[in-house]
Formats: sequence, C-alpha cells, structure tokens
Amino acid sequence: MLDICLLGSGGGMPMPERFLSSMVIGYNGRQILIDCGEGTQVAMRKMKTGFKSIDIICITHGHGDHIFGLPGLLSTIGNSDRIEPITIIGPAGIQDIVNGLIFSLKNLPYEINIIENPIEPLGINISPKGTKIDSEVSSNANMIISTLELEHSAPCLGYGFYIKRKPKFYPEKAELYKVPREIWRNLQNGETIIYDNQEYYPSMVLGEERKGIKLSYITDTRPTDKIVDFIRDSTFFVCEGTYGDNEDLHKAIKNKHMTFAEAGKLAYDGNVDELLLTHFSTAMKEPELYVEKVTDIFERAIIGYDGFNRILNFHKKE
Amino acid sequence: MLDICLLGSGGGMPMPERFLSSMVIGYNGRQILIDCGEGTQVAMRKMKTGFKSIDIICITHGHGDHIFGLPGLLSTIGNSDRIEPITIIGPAGIQDIVNGLIFSLKNLPYEINIIENPIEPLGINISPKGTKIDSEVSSNANMIISTLELEHSAPCLGYGFYIKRKPKFYPEKAELYKVPREIWRNLQNGETIIYDNQEYYPSMVLGEERKGIKLSYITDTRPTDKIVDFIRDSTFFVCEGTYGDNEDLHKAIKNKHMTFAEAGKLAYDGNVDELLLTHFSTAMKEPELYVEKVTDIFERAIIGYDGFNRILNFHKKE
Repeated sequence: MLDICLLGSGGGMPMPERFLSSMVIGYNGRQILIDCGEGTQVAMRKMKTGFKSIDIICITHGHGDHIFGLPGLLSTIGNSDRIEPITIIGPAGIQDIVNGLIFSLKNLPYEINIIENPIEPLGINISPKGTKIDSEVSSNANMIISTLELEHSAPCLGYGFYIKRKPKFYPEKAELYKVPREIWRNLQNGETIIYDNQEYYPSMVLGEERKGIKLSYITDTRPTDKIVDFIRDSTFFVCEGTYGDNEDLHKAIKNKHMTFAEAGKLAYDGNVDELLLTHFSTAMKEPELYVEKVTDIFERAIIGYDGFNRILNFHKKE
Repeated sequence: MLDICLLGSGGGMPMPERFLSSMVIGYNGRQILIDCGEGTQVAMRKMKTGFKSIDIICITHGHGDHIFGLPGLLSTIGNSDRIEPITIIGPAGIQDIVNGLIFSLKNLPYEINIIENPIEPLGINISPKGTKIDSEVSSNANMIISTLELEHSAPCLGYGFYIKRKPKFYPEKAELYKVPREIWRNLQNGETIIYDNQEYYPSMVLGEERKGIKLSYITDTRPTDKIVDFIRDSTFFVCEGTYGDNEDLHKAIKNKHMTFAEAGKLAYDGNVDELLLTHFSTAMKEPELYVEKVTDIFERAIIGYDGFNRILNFHKKE
C-alpha cells in the first residue's frame, strides 16, 4: 500500500491560509516527497509526517513555488542525524538550480545525489532499512518511478509511481506441473530453478499478471495527449487545477496551466479510478465552489486540501 | 519616526506556530527588511506590511533561518510590478550565497544590488519617492546604517539604524546675531549663506545637537564588548535571546548564541531605552516563562512575539 498526504494545495506564492502544493508518499516504512516550495517543511511538521525517512525528493520543475523550500528542508533533515543519502530527481537544469540553492549548506551529514531528467523508468527498492535506486527496472525493484515531460513555461516533469503486484500462487497448478514442494517458494518469488536435471518456471505455479497500484502526479502543465497515455488506468491521479472557473481558460492557456474541467477531461480520457485536484491559484480562495466544473466531466474527483490523506491499496476484486 | 514590526521571533527552523526572526522598518513611506528566513513573506502577508516599498534588505548572516526566504520574497516582489532596484546588505560571502539562491530567478523586473560587508556607515536618503544609498554619510542622508561584526559560527553583522534629528530653531538667537529673516530657513536647513557680503552659519539660529532615533539589531552572536559600544544609548535594542533559562548557558556558548540574561546585561551596559528579545530556540515553546531572567537585570525588556509593532519617535523631553 501507498500512504499519501497532500501537504499543500496552493500554487504561485505561499499564503498564510494555504501551503504550497506538495505530496509525501509513504511506502514500506520510507518516504518520497514530491515538490518542496517555501513552507513545505512547516506543513510536514504540522501534519506530523516526519523528516527522517525521506529518501527521494521528486521535483516537478524549478519554479519557486515548487523548490524554494528545498534548502530549508535539507538543512532541517541534516539536524535530525540522518546519514543515508537523499536522491533528488528533477527535469533538465535541476542540478544547477539545486546546487545554487544549497550553496550555503556546508556540512550536511548525508550525501545528495541528483538525477537530472531520467528518460527511462527507475527501478526502486524500498524497504524499512532504506531505499535503493537503479537506472533500470530489475527484479529487485518493488516500485517503478517514471517521468513525462510536460508543457509548462519551464522544463517540467510529471511523475508516475507504480507498485507491482505479484501474481497469485496456485498450488493446484504446481501439482499439475509436478513441481517439487521444495522449490514452490522460489518459483513464487519469480526464480527459475533447475531441480533433478529438470527446469521449472514461475508460470508453473503463478496466475496471470495483476494490476498494481499506480499513482500519477501531474503539475504544472497544459493538458496533452501524452499525459492521457502516461496516466492511463491510474489508481489515483493527482493533477493541477490552477483555475476553477471555465472563464479563466485564457489565463490557463497564457500561464501554461489547467482549469478544473481540463483536469477532469484528462482523468476521464485516461480512465483513472480517482482524481485529486491541487495547485490552486492564490486568487481562488474557495476552490470547492467550482467542484461541479470537474465532477460534471469526471465524477470521482476530489478538491484537494492541505492535509488530505489516503491509503492506496491493491484492487480488492482481483 | 520609525515604524517597526517584528515579523517573526523564532530561530533555527520554521515552525507552524512561530515565524522565523525578522523585522520590517517603515520610514518616510519606504521599508527596510532585516533577515528573510523561510516563511518571512508569509508573515508579511499575514501582518499586511506589503511588499512593494521594500528598498533595502539587511541580512545578518547566511544561515538558512535568516536567508532561505529570500528567493521566494524577491520572486513575489517581482510579481508586484516593481521596477525600482533592491539593495541587499550582508556580511562577507553574502554575494555568492544570494547569487546561488536566486540562480533560477531569470526575469525579475528590477535590479538587485548587493553590498558585501560595508566597513563604513552608509548614508541613506529615504523619501516616499524612493531610497538612495551612498557609501558615505553626506548631508543628504536622513538615515545612517552602520554594521558591526558579531561573534557567531558564520560571518554575521549587527545593524544600527540612526535617524538624525535637526537641532531646534531659535528665532531669538537669529535676532541676537542679526540674521536677515530672508535666510532663516536656509540656515535652519544647515546651509551656510553669504548675504550682503556677510557670512551666516547654521549655529546662529540653531540650538545644540539633539539625540535622534537609534535602532540596534543584534542577532546571532555571543555577547561582546563591541556590541555594548555599538548599541550605546539606543532608543530601541532588538537582540537575540535564543535561550531563556540560565541553565542553557553552555548551549549558548557552544552554539554561539545568548541567554536572556546575557542580552539583558548588554542592554544594561549599553544604557538603551528598551530591549526587545527575539530568535527563540524551537525548544522554548513559551519564552514568556523566562521573562524575569532578563527583567531582573534590565527592567525595560519585552519578550518578542510575531507581529509585535511599535512606533519609535524622537525623545519628547528634548
């Protein structure tokens, strides 16, 4: 399961009544943070998500409302006796931006690794002991992080987080193929085994592939066809909805953002299970007033708010 | 008069219930900001001090709790159609730190000038039309900004803000010296005038020098003798008091900060009118509990709080 918390739901500038858009994802005892605007560490403190187990920080882009909280957070994490490295993933140019922001942080007790604009999906192994990141997806990975280039006024990445689900184990199938009991567990774990000069495959004990948990996070951008492909069949789709009112479409186009209705259309076309809107314009004091602009197009839409919390599980039916 | 507002009173890390230590000074329709930690722009919004008339930002030192809000604030000011330049004053090394922090801010509509570790006092002319900064104090200056190197774990400056007060005008003195009425105003404004081949001096119409308004701002540091000289006879002395309890003196020594009692001793030795404590440790939830630690030594001490506001006027007696 993935434990997600929307730390803030605002865009543009930090406001007294709303934190900037950012999300923390908990998995297997460790955490991934998406975006870190000014005040994100304060939101983390307020929502008691903790600092010590953040292993990966995914930055969508280099605009201040998504990154100016980074030096403060890294500094605060440094005060918590952390020594494990932290990996920052971001779009083209992120390395220089981060290095500038953290220029004054001299003696951090941990290493910072930066992965700039990864083209291929990253294979992540997350366990309570820590997180390992591979530039390719191997059988060790229990999470896959994919990225998509978005259409904003700066290089910007959308993120996908996929938790694979093991196929179901069928003892009756194992018996049918006469698999010796001693190697059932190996095959169940995906290994191919030679036993008494005979080769045995995982498919001899396992059912079909099952849908995992797919979390998609898209901000800041205009809607694009590539987004629809990227988010297809997501369990949970977090999407920017900078403007609630359809009348603000011209602002959305000019500033390379989306209206609620446009986000709803993406969710509908991408056949996602649920949509969470975030990154609300500072001018929009009560985004709930515009809820029908999105639910008229995609019913299972939620207007995000600071502290929104959800546990994402595998689908029960399968 | 100086209109001061303590935007935050915390030190170390930004907390949900307390903004980081920072002050805005209003004078003649323009503003000076001292320090800008993460969230300072949110405090400014909450306390409605405005963004548009900030001409000078004084940074005490490059630690995150005093500077990590700078890129966000400069970005927000950029959104307010400002075109007048902003001057940042700070200790040795400030130029590189600021340039790193603002690396991603490409198209600010105004210029940023950085003055690194000024040794001599700066002559400032502030009027509702704008602010001019000279590297020396001329007769145009209506404010003088002085700095003092402090004793912290990074290069750190204390700041003094002095508003000169014109001497009183005495018509009886002007008549005694037979000064023609036509040039009374010129002499009153400090000019020396030749009239009918006779030289006339300001001292022929003016009384003695009068004490101006002196605001001193000292954080972060251990107490030093130089601080006592620097703050002497201040109208208002803002000073760090990271630790309330005398029992925490060893922490103050180790981390190069002060206890309430040490700040009180500086105020007493410096013969200031009033002391305002700020920059409280995150571990000190209720600094008011330790008020007697400072008032036992210096009676006119105030425990700072976010939003503390005061107008500083010339002394009435003189």
